[in-house]
Amino acid sequence: MSGLRAGMALRPVSLSSAARRTFASSRTLKAASAAPFFSNEPEGPSIKTSIPGPKTKQHIDELNDVFDTRSMNMLADYTKSVGNYIVDPDGNTLLDVFAQIASIPVGYNNPNLIKAASTPDMVNAIVNRPALGAFPSHDYASILKTGILKVAPRGLNHVFTAMAGSDANETAYKAAFMYRRQLERGSPDADFTQVELDSAMNNQSPGAPQLSIMSFKTGFHGRLFGSLSTTRSKALHKIDIPAFDWPQATFPQLKYPLEENAAENAKIEQASLDEVEHLIKTWHLPPAAIVVEPIQSEGGDNHASPDFFRKLRALTKKHNVLLIVDEVQTGVGATGKFWAHEHWNLQDPPDMVTFSKKAQAAGFYYGNTAIRPNKPYRQFNTWMGDPVRALLFRAIIGEIERLDLINNTAKVGDYLYSEIESLAKKYPDQFQGLRGKGQGTFLAFDNPRRDEFLAKAKTLGVNMGGSGNSAVRLRPMLIMQQKHADILLDTLEKIAKSW
Amino acid sequence: MSGLRAGMALRPVSLSSAARRTFASSRTLKAASAAPFFSNEPEGPSIKTSIPGPKTKQHIDELNDVFDTRSMNMLADYTKSVGNYIVDPDGNTLLDVFAQIASIPVGYNNPNLIKAASTPDMVNAIVNRPALGAFPSHDYASILKTGILKVAPRGLNHVFTAMAGSDANETAYKAAFMYRRQLERGSPDADFTQVELDSAMNNQSPGAPQLSIMSFKTGFHGRLFGSLSTTRSKALHKIDIPAFDWPQATFPQLKYPLEENAAENAKIEQASLDEVEHLIKTWHLPPAAIVVEPIQSEGGDNHASPDFFRKLRALTKKHNVLLIVDEVQTGVGATGKFWAHEHWNLQDPPDMVTFSKKAQAAGFYYGNTAIRPNKPYRQFNTWMGDPVRALLFRAIIGEIERLDLINNTAKVGDYLYSEIESLAKKYPDQFQGLRGKGQGTFLAFDNPRRDEFLAKAKTLGVNMGGSGNSAVRLRPMLIMQQKHADILLDTLEKIAKSW
Repeated sequence: MSGLRAGMALRPVSLSSAARRTFASSRTLKAASAAPFFSNEPEGPSIKTSIPGPKTKQHIDELNDVFDTRSMNMLADYTKSVGNYIVDPDGNTLLDVFAQIASIPVGYNNPNLIKAASTPDMVNAIVNRPALGAFPSHDYASILKTGILKVAPRGLNHVFTAMAGSDANETAYKAAFMYRRQLERGSPDADFTQVELDSAMNNQSPGAPQLSIMSFKTGFHGRLFGSLSTTRSKALHKIDIPAFDWPQATFPQLKYPLEENAAENAKIEQASLDEVEHLIKTWHLPPAAIVVEPIQSEGGDNHASPDFFRKLRALTKKHNVLLIVDEVQTGVGATGKFWAHEHWNLQDPPDMVTFSKKAQAAGFYYGNTAIRPNKPYRQFNTWMGDPVRALLFRAIIGEIERLDLINNTAKVGDYLYSEIESLAKKYPDQFQGLRGKGQGTFLAFDNPRRDEFLAKAKTLGVNMGGSGNSAVRLRPMLIMQQKHADILLDTLEKIAKSW
Repeated sequence: MSGLRAGMALRPVSLSSAARRTFASSRTLKAASAAPFFSNEPEGPSIKTSIPGPKTKQHIDELNDVFDTRSMNMLADYTKSVGNYIVDPDGNTLLDVFAQIASIPVGYNNPNLIKAASTPDMVNAIVNRPALGAFPSHDYASILKTGILKVAPRGLNHVFTAMAGSDANETAYKAAFMYRRQLERGSPDADFTQVELDSAMNNQSPGAPQLSIMSFKTGFHGRLFGSLSTTRSKALHKIDIPAFDWPQATFPQLKYPLEENAAENAKIEQASLDEVEHLIKTWHLPPAAIVVEPIQSEGGDNHASPDFFRKLRALTKKHNVLLIVDEVQTGVGATGKFWAHEHWNLQDPPDMVTFSKKAQAAGFYYGNTAIRPNKPYRQFNTWMGDPVRALLFRAIIGEIERLDLINNTAKVGDYLYSEIESLAKKYPDQFQGLRGKGQGTFLAFDNPRRDEFLAKAKTLGVNMGGSGNSAVRLRPMLIMQQKHADILLDTLEKIAKSW
């Protein structure tokens, strides 16, 4: 793996300014002088051409012949990207705090991931892909136990593997429906009736049951037909696609900072919980499960308190509705815990937790084996995941442990939050509704000219993402250190100053 | 890659008998003396223990702790499997004519696939997985053009990549719905109305439109919520899962052999086409598309004539309904053409062709760029496929070309068909309704005690699959040669004789 090529000259953008900030804020972070995780990272961003530059444009033209490029944000050369830095074919080097929509955990061209990707086990997983449900490999238990299940959320020691976030959620929904119907039948041994079997073949009830999955307004759970029916992020995601008539409750629209608005926020959360209970009791298609993100991400980084989630768990228990926690974006360390729902200190764990993105693998964890349907082949498909990605997740977990990245993210996140808080005092219009305190680097704020803000950041060497209508969401990798945070902060201030 | 280990003693099952057949039938196949594709393949199956044997049972127990193993057919050691042979931890070596539910194209541990899996490009694709829609890699156009698009069906030179068959179909369905609504609006530039935008957020029409996808009875198109709504294979696949109220037409239930029943079959096909047209005109949720498999595979290997499919194409054109051909199982060479729908000689290509399984990659091909929705991000998700699998498909295509595997499959398939035809004359009860003439090795027959038949085959060293209620379906790899066909034929005859 060549990694960074020698010919790639780096021109750090105003290092002096970044250096100043490092000095000024070194009191806040004990780990400030920690050794760099990547020895071959550039010192800072380097912008050589407009983006896209001339070489990149050629690649885009070529791609556009055969592939829809209208949603392209930036074309990259991943062979040259390293650590926190994404590099394009014109040699532009950007600090990447969007990280492939929050899905790169431990850096581009991470050497230990390269090692894992070069093993005979990985080659075997690539060329001999099994149909895991029917012909599992002799070592799949070991791959799961030393990887995906090593980091299983407390109480959820089983897994059903999938391919990506959408089908992870949809297979969890399917499990919820089968579980609910089994409860209604009174026993896992109860036979299906002929009426059920026949009506299922015609997509009619009772075989195709009149049940639903409840989700929250502004939530995002994927874009296939079942998951999209629970997604409520943007009309553009949903328009023209048929959907199930499933219920949505209002997600608490809290006032930030949370600690200054506790009393009012508690009322807002109670109103949401009351709505949830009302919908459970009255919706014409009763919910078999409620799906919720710990932090609504695509919907604009909307938070709720641990108390809200504990009460939601209690409500779902009370009404025999399963709770599915969608950790596709929040999971794997970014919030300063491995799973974001650990922040809630639940007495009873969720029934299912779905994962993807930074895990690179995907699926859902569960604890109660009654969530396995009563007969084989009911929850089944040809591949049921990909051992390549299961092996990679194992290597990612290894890096998280080796570099203590959960603690790193918590510390760097606290630092970043407090520094943006200071910027918000200086430029209150530019950094509105800062959120994510105590949630690692999973931070966001609103900016009234958000799209311009993101475009400007790119010209200054930082790749940043948005979500919702006006949020700038920060989704750095777990390997962000204070020096990277300082470059980001410097860029944020430059944009704010220039307006 | 160690491949076959030296210690693995092979005990060919009645090689003498297989040898006899090779001799007896050498007149039928010109390529009989062709060089073997794999120099290190065993000479034949070797059964050492009951299946599962003691070592395998230990692995199953360990796996069962964390993973639902009830749908397990056989646990395998892929590091020891080679070419057409699957090996288990007890050293049992079986000729594999099921091939991971028809998804292994060019043999276990194919040396050229191992080479491709060991390149820096592959390592890069594993560790730096891009969000392809937003941050494509500089070489993605080239990867597509030298791989997935090199084998694009005639007239369909664009691709939307996905992860597996189910989401390949669902994204094709989404494209069909968006295309249909765009036609109804009269222009791609027509704005969405506020009513559409608002109702879409509530999963209500007109934003979530009252439209459907039509499929055929006994068809299989996947198991997520949209694809499952078009799947009509078995009640066990569908029961307890909510479904859309979408229409199904009767798939022609033809009499075999086709050439002896041409007149009657033509009537059956016309009745099916009449039903399709009636449903298009009258179904309360008008179909935006019809999805059809060239050969219904999970549903029991049901065929229809090229004439049927040509008329279906004409019908869909006439009524402005898109035609989606689901080549997830039939594609990539097994029918003696690269795509099974090439057998139809269509004047107008299908609107979309979906693929997965033997391609290892997945997605849908399309020709008309109006099938790209009018705005970006409407057809979008984080990963939109996996470059690892795109690179592997390229290597698979290389092997298909190098070894002339489409022609090989056509020839070996013809041989296999005619020999099973002879067996059917000798044992008419055991080999009923033989089908797949001229369709490569994509063959099937019915057996009244099918499940026993498959179990018996395993004890004799052949891993075979079933589909539908009573079909034995043969899904060998493209690298099956006459010597493998002879072992299979020998086993079929042994089972038939023993009953």
